[in-house]
Amino acid sequence: MSRRLEILRRATEIFNDQGVSRTTFEDIANAVGIKREAIYYYFKGRGDILAEIILPQSTALLANLRHIIRSDMSSPEKLRAAIESHVSSFNPSYLEMTIALREDHFVTKDEKLKELRRVWAEYSDLWTGLVEEGQGNGSFKNSVDPKMAAFGILGMCNWMSRWFHPGKGLSLPDIADTFSILVGEGLIEDKKKPS
Amino acid sequence: MSRRLEILRRATEIFNDQGVSRTTFEDIANAVGIKREAIYYYFKGRGDILAEIILPQSTALLANLRHIIRSDMSSPEKLRAAIESHVSSFNPSYLEMTIALREDHFVTKDEKLKELRRVWAEYSDLWTGLVEEGQGNGSFKNSVDPKMAAFGILGMCNWMSRWFHPGKGLSLPDIADTFSILVGEGLIEDKKKPS
Repeated sequence: MSRRLEILRRATEIFNDQGVSRTTFEDIANAVGIKREAIYYYFKGRGDILAEIILPQSTALLANLRHIIRSDMSSPEKLRAAIESHVSSFNPSYLEMTIALREDHFVTKDEKLKELRRVWAEYSDLWTGLVEEGQGNGSFKNSVDPKMAAFGILGMCNWMSRWFHPGKGLSLPDIADTFSILVGEGLIEDKKKPS
Repeated sequence: MSRRLEILRRATEIFNDQGVSRTTFEDIANAVGIKREAIYYYFKGRGDILAEIILPQSTALLANLRHIIRSDMSSPEKLRAAIESHVSSFNPSYLEMTIALREDHFVTKDEKLKELRRVWAEYSDLWTGLVEEGQGNGSFKNSVDPKMAAFGILGMCNWMSRWFHPGKGLSLPDIADTFSILVGEGLIEDKKKPS
């Protein structure tokens, strides 16, 4: 494994264990077994490392959502596929999603995180578009604000970064299934719904 | 204003501005205009201050949910009332909710935060109970896992700590309304639902 890759791997583990904001360059250097100064040869700062860890996963998630939206599925099918895509990115093999979401990285103004912010903004806009499309073709209720609905669904999934532990409780497909029913069909039995 | 209260007020502002994990005792002392050592007269550490800021709001939220659950409302009405109670706690006059949720404070093992963890665990259990009650009396769908449904709804609301800015976008009652429709009745128009 290259030194650069090793730094990224160790940083991913430490970020996941103790949180990004509590991790120093020193911590990462110690874990790799090199001097703090040596990391600067590869990365300019913590934001650099963080962006490199998170960005590929976020970009993949964005590309996946684009495919779903452009497909010929119905809007309810797209909704389910988009939830499945998002929830399954909490795959136990990847710590990226938890690291990306558990903390608010945009509290600091880091240049390197700008690209990440752009990807997430586009992702969130696509979600709003998915809801609007369904409202436009009569599949989704017009009584909800599309952006708030998108933010709500994303929040539901993103909050997993705070409680989901791979191997404990339900599996990712089961969670995606519950979330899809919850926001798609709703919790209330049809006969009990206010008309 | 007492010195103690002033420390709490300033700490609340700084926690909100720059995040708890990035705030030192030094920062709080500077904002109050006293020496770092002087704060120790009132508080043992940052966790102490944090717990004192967050706990009253969290305890009030818990008490409110208990009232809702014990009331004679129907399960769908309880669901809506519980969402309204949670969402309205992001009231612009209070920064507590954002501070409480934006970061994961349990990354560190702070004794003082134990009580907070207990309150949140009970709150989350009550939410699961609300869903189970509705499933038991035939108001809610049995096809969803009650705990995952509760976690999903709470996540939807809690994620507001990452995007909600008072005065921008929809009001809290409008957000509560959208979220209630979303998870109660579901996004999909009834005639389009899979049967």
